[in-house]
Amino acid sequence: MQIRKATGFANSNIAFIKYWGNRDHALRLPVNDSLSMNLDGLHTRTTVAFDPSLTADVVALGGQIQSPESSKRVSDHLDRVRALAGLKTFARVESENNFPTGAGIASSASGFAALTVAAGAAAGLALSERELSILARQGSGSASRSIPSGFVEWKTGSNPDGRDSFAFSVAAPDHWALADCIAIVSSAHKEVGSTGGHALARTSPLQQARIEDAPRRLNLCREALLARDFEKFAEAVEEDSTMMHAIMMTSRPPLYYWLPPTLAVMDAARKWRANGLPACFTIDAGPNVHVLTLAAHASDVASRLRALPGVQNVLVAAPGGGASLINE
Amino acid sequence: MQIRKATGFANSNIAFIKYWGNRDHALRLPVNDSLSMNLDGLHTRTTVAFDPSLTADVVALGGQIQSPESSKRVSDHLDRVRALAGLKTFARVESENNFPTGAGIASSASGFAALTVAAGAAAGLALSERELSILARQGSGSASRSIPSGFVEWKTGSNPDGRDSFAFSVAAPDHWALADCIAIVSSAHKEVGSTGGHALARTSPLQQARIEDAPRRLNLCREALLARDFEKFAEAVEEDSTMMHAIMMTSRPPLYYWLPPTLAVMDAARKWRANGLPACFTIDAGPNVHVLTLAAHASDVASRLRALPGVQNVLVAAPGGGASLINE
Repeated sequence: MQIRKATGFANSNIAFIKYWGNRDHALRLPVNDSLSMNLDGLHTRTTVAFDPSLTADVVALGGQIQSPESSKRVSDHLDRVRALAGLKTFARVESENNFPTGAGIASSASGFAALTVAAGAAAGLALSERELSILARQGSGSASRSIPSGFVEWKTGSNPDGRDSFAFSVAAPDHWALADCIAIVSSAHKEVGSTGGHALARTSPLQQARIEDAPRRLNLCREALLARDFEKFAEAVEEDSTMMHAIMMTSRPPLYYWLPPTLAVMDAARKWRANGLPACFTIDAGPNVHVLTLAAHASDVASRLRALPGVQNVLVAAPGGGASLINE
Repeated sequence: MQIRKATGFANSNIAFIKYWGNRDHALRLPVNDSLSMNLDGLHTRTTVAFDPSLTADVVALGGQIQSPESSKRVSDHLDRVRALAGLKTFARVESENNFPTGAGIASSASGFAALTVAAGAAAGLALSERELSILARQGSGSASRSIPSGFVEWKTGSNPDGRDSFAFSVAAPDHWALADCIAIVSSAHKEVGSTGGHALARTSPLQQARIEDAPRRLNLCREALLARDFEKFAEAVEEDSTMMHAIMMTSRPPLYYWLPPTLAVMDAARKWRANGLPACFTIDAGPNVHVLTLAAHASDVASRLRALPGVQNVLVAAPGGGASLINE
């Protein structure tokens, strides 16, 4: 058998309504539906080559060969693809992000989405968008959202095997000219990653109330998004973000991801909006702040952010497309 | 009729298990029980003189005569005392705090406790500690806790008229040599005060869960306090504080009281404790941080706090006594 190779590409995404906590950890079935936007230009590009000469999977991230421990989550994901394809061959995986890893920009989302697309194609599978989303979800929950294009909703579904837990596009990237100005306040690797954090979510006495209120928040946010109503959108997005961090900070042990400059950016975004500039914050499991605005205001917002103490860098992203194969 | 005059004294208090939200606003009946410590040396001293020659109440705070609008809450409280005493006479009120007002140190707690003691005595009422606590509560909820001595629990009770909602001492000031090191990061007056905040509490989708979990937190904290178990105490106190701020930040409109240095102090307290120094944070409706420690470590904690960026001043208080009359 010859080497079978494919390259996949996927953008990261930022959730407006967040995913925090699983109803099934192994299958990464979330406790609530979520809503996100793909981030154009913040992407992972991954090549998978199934090679009969290999005696184990070899995983390189950013040119660095990973230890077997670090590779395990990728190998486990390749096992899912191999099981679907009836394949026994090990693979060489080369993956590159064009943004810093592990600091609140969802590298696992774009990473597992790109890996899924590449591995599926290299294994000879013809997977639908829905099948790709379900498969990507099992590698990293939020990766399910990096498969479809533009603005994306991910349903938790009701089936225990997860067959109805996938993401789909609710609007194309050109539906609304939003921009995500990502204020980097720390590029340090976080102490507790998302996978560990999801497992702690249920230990917060507030998590059940957050879950029960999630459909209200998601409906509000989706309606605002579809109507391009920034003010309504901003309130839903900030409330949802802070509600997730409330769960994190009241878990046992508590997870405090905010740093002093995180709070300074949050406060600035709220003040700017009160003064008429469309801007709102949302924060993933890390200290960096995504300040959402309209494209027409993106350069103004980015330069204001750069002027804030503690902001090291600002990345700007427009709504992005879905995951795809790259012909080489 | 001659002038009838008395002077009352009360310490402020810091809640370990917080009061946030009322079951009855007019009567200031809280949604959950709370637990606090009086703060020795952070006090209000108030003189009330019922004077037949006056045609309205005259209120001076820190030597400044207050406008009728600013005096209204004090006049309303004097009305309660006049109703109990069958008195029609207006009063001259002179009140002094020895700490900054309106910045997260509960000036309304010591203020209304001292006012209650002074006005009750000047009106010729012989009120029990329980009656004083019930009366003080109607001026400012947390004032009910500044009446008894030392470590104090305030019950919400069940009677709609509030007759069983009062505070009582659970331990004398010398039970445990705690110290409260108050890191002042801003002395600005807050935009939304506690009274307005309590009214917003029910708009948070998380408030009901916080209320339902409150007995667990209070029992944990009281047990730790009675057993002088600092580690267990610290976890309960920090969890309760952050849970209250989670409600504030998810109210509509949201209330963000934390400033960047607030977060820096919280993080420092947690790191110090992880490294063996007994220290934990708790934060009222404002940006200042109360860092609780043992008396033996108070000067170390205070000097570490002074070295943190954004900390303007540190006040240190031991467990304090209850409200009392001052003989002049």
